[in-house]
Amino acid sequence: MSKYKELKRECYEANMQLPALDLVIYTFGNVSAVDRDESVFAIKPSGVPYDDLKPEDIVIVDFENNLVEGSMRPSSDTKTHAYLYSQWEDIGGIAHTHATYSVAWAQAQRDIPIFGTTHADHLVADIPCAPPMPDEYIEGDYEHMTGKQILDCFADKGISHKEVEMVLLGNHGPFSWGKTAAKAVYNSKVMEELGRMAYLTLQINPEAPRLKDALIKKHYQRKHGKNAYYGQN
Amino acid sequence: MSKYKELKRECYEANMQLPALDLVIYTFGNVSAVDRDESVFAIKPSGVPYDDLKPEDIVIVDFENNLVEGSMRPSSDTKTHAYLYSQWEDIGGIAHTHATYSVAWAQAQRDIPIFGTTHADHLVADIPCAPPMPDEYIEGDYEHMTGKQILDCFADKGISHKEVEMVLLGNHGPFSWGKTAAKAVYNSKVMEELGRMAYLTLQINPEAPRLKDALIKKHYQRKHGKNAYYGQN
Amino acid sequence: MSKYKELKRECYEANMQLPALDLVIYTFGNVSAVDRDESVFAIKPSGVPYDDLKPEDIVIVDFENNLVEGSMRPSSDTKTHAYLYSQWEDIGGIAHTHATYSVAWAQAQRDIPIFGTTHADHLVADIPCAPPMPDEYIEGDYEHMTGKQILDCFADKGISHKEVEMVLLGNHGPFSWGKTAAKAVYNSKVMEELGRMAYLTLQINPEAPRLKDALIKKHYQRKHGKNAYYGQN
Amino acid sequence: MSKYKELKRECYEANMQLPALDLVIYTFGNVSAVDRDESVFAIKPSGVPYDDLKPEDIVIVDFENNLVEGSMRPSSDTKTHAYLYSQWEDIGGIAHTHATYSVAWAQAQRDIPIFGTTHADHLVADIPCAPPMPDEYIEGDYEHMTGKQILDCFADKGISHKEVEMVLLGNHGPFSWGKTAAKAVYNSKVMEELGRMAYLTLQINPEAPRLKDALIKKHYQRKHGKNAYYGQN
Repeated sequence: MSKYKELKRECYEANMQLPALDLVIYTFGNVSAVDRDESVFAIKPSGVPYDDLKPEDIVIVDFENNLVEGSMRPSSDTKTHAYLYSQWEDIGGIAHTHATYSVAWAQAQRDIPIFGTTHADHLVADIPCAPPMPDEYIEGDYEHMTGKQILDCFADKGISHKEVEMVLLGNHGPFSWGKTAAKAVYNSKVMEELGRMAYLTLQINPEAPRLKDALIKKHYQRKHGKNAYYGQN
Repeated sequence: MSKYKELKRECYEANMQLPALDLVIYTFGNVSAVDRDESVFAIKPSGVPYDDLKPEDIVIVDFENNLVEGSMRPSSDTKTHAYLYSQWEDIGGIAHTHATYSVAWAQAQRDIPIFGTTHADHLVADIPCAPPMPDEYIEGDYEHMTGKQILDCFADKGISHKEVEMVLLGNHGPFSWGKTAAKAVYNSKVMEELGRMAYLTLQINPEAPRLKDALIKKHYQRKHGKNAYYGQN
Repeated sequence: MSKYKELKRECYEANMQLPALDLVIYTFGNVSAVDRDESVFAIKPSGVPYDDLKPEDIVIVDFENNLVEGSMRPSSDTKTHAYLYSQWEDIGGIAHTHATYSVAWAQAQRDIPIFGTTHADHLVADIPCAPPMPDEYIEGDYEHMTGKQILDCFADKGISHKEVEMVLLGNHGPFSWGKTAAKAVYNSKVMEELGRMAYLTLQINPEAPRLKDALIKKHYQRKHGKNAYYGQN
Repeated sequence: MSKYKELKRECYEANMQLPALDLVIYTFGNVSAVDRDESVFAIKPSGVPYDDLKPEDIVIVDFENNLVEGSMRPSSDTKTHAYLYSQWEDIGGIAHTHATYSVAWAQAQRDIPIFGTTHADHLVADIPCAPPMPDEYIEGDYEHMTGKQILDCFADKGISHKEVEMVLLGNHGPFSWGKTAAKAVYNSKVMEELGRMAYLTLQINPEAPRLKDALIKKHYQRKHGKNAYYGQN
């Protein structure tokens, strides 16, 4: 029996949340879950419809993109996951979808502005939209450089991936991450809902102001700060 | 056996309506139900996903925010509920959601205009949007002052919470109330639908006029007036 | 046993289609079915949630709004149905909903333009929006005059209720009719979808032209004309 | 037993995907599947609701529109399918829907711009919108000329039906095709989603640029090029 059985199951269940949460159709999207002790991660096989996906189809890959276990080809986006895991040592899962509103903001090449407390409950900044990749990135090791484009964006904007667990890649779509694969998927769903709320907000009032600092701080702190009082423990 | 068993069940069932009616995702939102004889109310525990929620998880709190019964921490918005119950002695339930269109109007900081008879079947005024809270309210006893901000808004606009059972809090989202917790949830769903209809109305015709007074009066009276003839008794 | 058992069942089943087709929430909307031989019609009781509705709850009323059979109060819109049945002797059912896009067009006080063949498959004209009712209509016998307002609109525009089986009442919402109650509901659903398509069309291209005459004629005739070849006989 | 039993089943199952994927309501739309060896195709009967459709209802027709097998009248759009099969010898299935966003773009008479990698994963060009048909086409052999209008559009724009497996017909709606009937339906669903994403993109940023060439090429090649590495094999 595979020593990665539990990791595959975690990855499988997180992937199956994508269609359940209306974040993907057909074979779009992929989720991975990492095992830091083994320095490997589990990821969806490429191009398999969610209806057909089984836990044993999940592929195990290391951070240099070598196949460790599995009979199927891993997601074509595997190198992006590998790069992010190698650079951000504290994340446990990554999700990539083609969710409608998130993709629309990415195609519009616009950050999703922080307009309300629903947003501040999750992060204190606009959801960043990384610029479309330069041609030399695209024509080189594309999926690897996709990860680099995301890190470049966070460096340029001076934001931390620990506080902002989601990003839009210009002209492409959303990536998110978290302590676990399930949390990465949660962040994808939240980003999609924030993108939908922000879209409607601007349609109703194109001059809608960003959330005031006191509310940003209050809502983020009550959920994530030292003296957080949201949730159980 | 708890003497609050029935109250907890009423509160539980009203909370479970929120995801069923597409008004929340994950742990967003909360509903409470009051027992006026005992001067306590039942409320959702903080941060518990609806899928996991059980009737016995519901927490009993008094109007001074003291825990009366329950092993879990109550909703982080509990003080807002407590303040509204203490100030408005005739309400029996309160609902708070992050429903998409309601939040969009709140983020746009706009009242939802009364455009049609669907609206007038429920209230005779625009759905008010209270301004974002001043910094001293936010940095003080935030959730208590959230309740105060709502009362300030009703006082400033000269409207009664008996006739307008719903409000948007600027940059945050919707609150609603009613004779029962179930009615409070009903009002949240109606507000969301009125917000969606009003949004579309303005997209089709940015100059759409408010509903004429004769129709406002007619529709509200036939449902809620002395000689109401809508419904059974 | 009631001699109206079959009529009640037809009416009940047509009413239950409204929530199934996402045309109403809660107690909104109502459908009726007529028995021309008996000069009576069956209609939903007022204010009853669809989840609770049973075939035996359906109320039988005559064209002068007298209760013929039933223990519940009929829909508050009953007089509108009675008036339309009395004036249009060839219709067999009427539906009234508060479907979102239909209400938005009614609140915008705009006809739904005929933009494509989906529309022309059903009718050759814009879906008319009757103006909001004059105050004397509202303050008089309101629901009776609602029917009159619809007939006035068709007379003013010179259109026939046989060719245009649907209307928007300004600031209120949609009414539709047909040979049977089921067909009336079908027309409500089609109107909602046409309203949604037309809304999106104008958002994409505010200068979108109306459908050309040759296509209007072709699509309507192939489905409804003398030499129609759509469907099975 | 019919020698077309398998072909009918393929056609039936592809048709049943249309309501399952929210691409049609009622009797709208139709899918066909071809048997190149027999020079016939299977198609939905005209005007039959999907809920009532059975595999044995599917009609077999040849490329000159002669009925080969079946007791029902074939889709009123049969001649369009026949023309496309006769002209494009490598396609195996055709789908036609009245999906909402696709129809909206067709009614707006606008190509769906290629804004992102979701689009480039499927085709390298804008989704073309053929102009509304000239009156002499409409008044002549309408459904046959509908097919011709599609081919004219591809010739005028210099695009290949092998690389662009979908089209909008101005004022009417979407047609798509593929190696199989199932793939044709897949293309209809993808087109609808691309139309929705593009609509939202333009609402957020009316100046959104088309996708850069390097990304168009990269995404299309990794999925469809000689060295494609998406999917299994």
